Amino acid sequence: MTQDQSKKTEIMDPRIPSLIEKAERALIVTHISPDGDAIGSLLGLGWALRALGKHSVLACADPVPQPFHFLPGHQEIVREPEGTFDLVIGLDASDPQRLGSPWQQAEGLDAPKIVIDHHVTNLHFGDINWVDTTAAATAEMIYELVQALDVPMNVDIAQCLLCGVVTDTRGFRTSNTTPRSLAIATRLMEAGADLNLVTEQALNRKPLAVLRLWGMALPRMQMRGRILWSTVTRQMREETGVNDNGDGGLVNVLVSANEADVAVVFTEREDNRVEVGMRAKPGFDVSQVALSLGGGGHPQAAGCVIKGSLEEVQELVLSALEESLRRQGGE
Amino acid sequence: MTQDQSKKTEIMDPRIPSLIEKAERALIVTHISPDGDAIGSLLGLGWALRALGKHSVLACADPVPQPFHFLPGHQEIVREPEGTFDLVIGLDASDPQRLGSPWQQAEGLDAPKIVIDHHVTNLHFGDINWVDTTAAATAEMIYELVQALDVPMNVDIAQCLLCGVVTDTRGFRTSNTTPRSLAIATRLMEAGADLNLVTEQALNRKPLAVLRLWGMALPRMQMRGRILWSTVTRQMREETGVNDNGDGGLVNVLVSANEADVAVVFTEREDNRVEVGMRAKPGFDVSQVALSLGGGGHPQAAGCVIKGSLEEVQELVLSALEESLRRQGGE
Repeated sequence: MTQDQSKKTEIMDPRIPSLIEKAERALIVTHISPDGDAIGSLLGLGWALRALGKHSVLACADPVPQPFHFLPGHQEIVREPEGTFDLVIGLDASDPQRLGSPWQQAEGLDAPKIVIDHHVTNLHFGDINWVDTTAAATAEMIYELVQALDVPMNVDIAQCLLCGVVTDTRGFRTSNTTPRSLAIATRLMEAGADLNLVTEQALNRKPLAVLRLWGMALPRMQMRGRILWSTVTRQMREETGVNDNGDGGLVNVLVSANEADVAVVFTEREDNRVEVGMRAKPGFDVSQVALSLGGGGHPQAAGCVIKGSLEEVQELVLSALEESLRRQGGE
Repeated sequence: MTQDQSKKTEIMDPRIPSLIEKAERALIVTHISPDGDAIGSLLGLGWALRALGKHSVLACADPVPQPFHFLPGHQEIVREPEGTFDLVIGLDASDPQRLGSPWQQAEGLDAPKIVIDHHVTNLHFGDINWVDTTAAATAEMIYELVQALDVPMNVDIAQCLLCGVVTDTRGFRTSNTTPRSLAIATRLMEAGADLNLVTEQALNRKPLAVLRLWGMALPRMQMRGRILWSTVTRQMREETGVNDNGDGGLVNVLVSANEADVAVVFTEREDNRVEVGMRAKPGFDVSQVALSLGGGGHPQAAGCVIKGSLEEVQELVLSALEESLRRQGGE
């Protein structure tokens, strides 16, 4: 199953704007390990509620990552919300665990829980669930909600929502980017959001350590047929100080090579496992191999984690990919 | 002088659609060393004229680069146009030299010459000149012209024009990307243009040799204050086979490092000169140093070519940049 096969537009439940208008003190929660859409949607909705004259508490169990510190209001996001609430809204998360402790604390409250999300895997765990899997970002849905609430768009809302759209579409480059994504981004720019700033701050940055890691991994590139692959060892991660970022996006760089139909990066982990990141050019599919090896993903981007040494896992995955590409080529 | 200071919207001369409607056989010429906007604008306008039932000849003195071979109609572009024409249109070029031999041949013809371009340096060398320097791409202007010609947008026109907008804005990432760029891209997608395909084909690709070059240049990275720099020697270009691409975009990779305010790549040329590519994070300006060293550019992207050895040029440029950044910091 690929994500695209099960996508479905869902109209906003009219009770959502109505409950927000009635609420006196709302708690809005976004997911752990927050990305640009998590933070952008949270702050965008927060600014909209402020424009309505409402008090809301914005919560995330994890700190706001540095790349999103340029967003207005990020200092007001709390990790442990206090007090009582008459409305709870969970954003950009498929399941309650992903919303962390703020959501778990709120579960006991006698307050309606609204879930707004765009992931196909969403469990519909709220009292009211609005899950639009055709939205490229939850921020697109918040844009629609802001319209429904009759809040005039302002530059603070716009900047935060644009961050969500831009990061979840990797700058309008993912295949789920729609004309709606672009139309919303147009209106957010017209309201004063700075696309160049969002791109530079939230998208185009990486630690210097990642560039040093690429500098060690690129000379190790090898071609096997039309598969371009490389390896990131534990030692390379230790020497460069790249610990939690896996390959630092290297596999996306590799798949940009004209000569490659498919790219793979093998990242050695601490626990005698190897993380396998795979990418395919349009027209090729790496999700089948990932699925057959216990992982998952989309045709163009998939991955898995396999027990074994680097050499063992390399041979296993490259052979499976070669076989799969042969079948895809119709031979 | 930076480009932004002299930008100016220019309304389309109404004689342009009128001359096109009257023409029986138009010659459309785009610039040498064509990029995605040159080819996309040329083909987009060609498809629009075809929709009007007109015969036109599309010309470019250089072959269409491989990344644009996915565009419909690219095979019909000729290098040496033959026959006679009653209208000549030059696209995306500041001066007649840049339009190469097809334009020079047409200069003797008794036919009106129209120039459509978005570069601030345009010399207004046509009989009618439409130079809109607020357009991020000439393709945005062709979009407007297609509207003025009352040609219904079709998927062929749309795909070609989207290629122009996407490549000239590097996927909506350059600072000259406007809400209009996004609004036009929205309508082109709605007409059936495939944004993901355009991005993958025209933007996200590079020769494997470029990745090998990066693999040699990244380990040579050095920090000087907040300036991150590296070097591409003649030998590195020879070993990897990257000849005409300079640094293959390496300086854009370097400036993405969190730790850098400014990035520089020194590329050794054959003629005892060194090409200096500079990039700056928003809030910093490298154009002043480039100008003072005989080059030019924008605050965020500038460059120059300096006579001397790598070591001499490195010292000269890095010292000048350090001094300039000190002044910019208000010290």
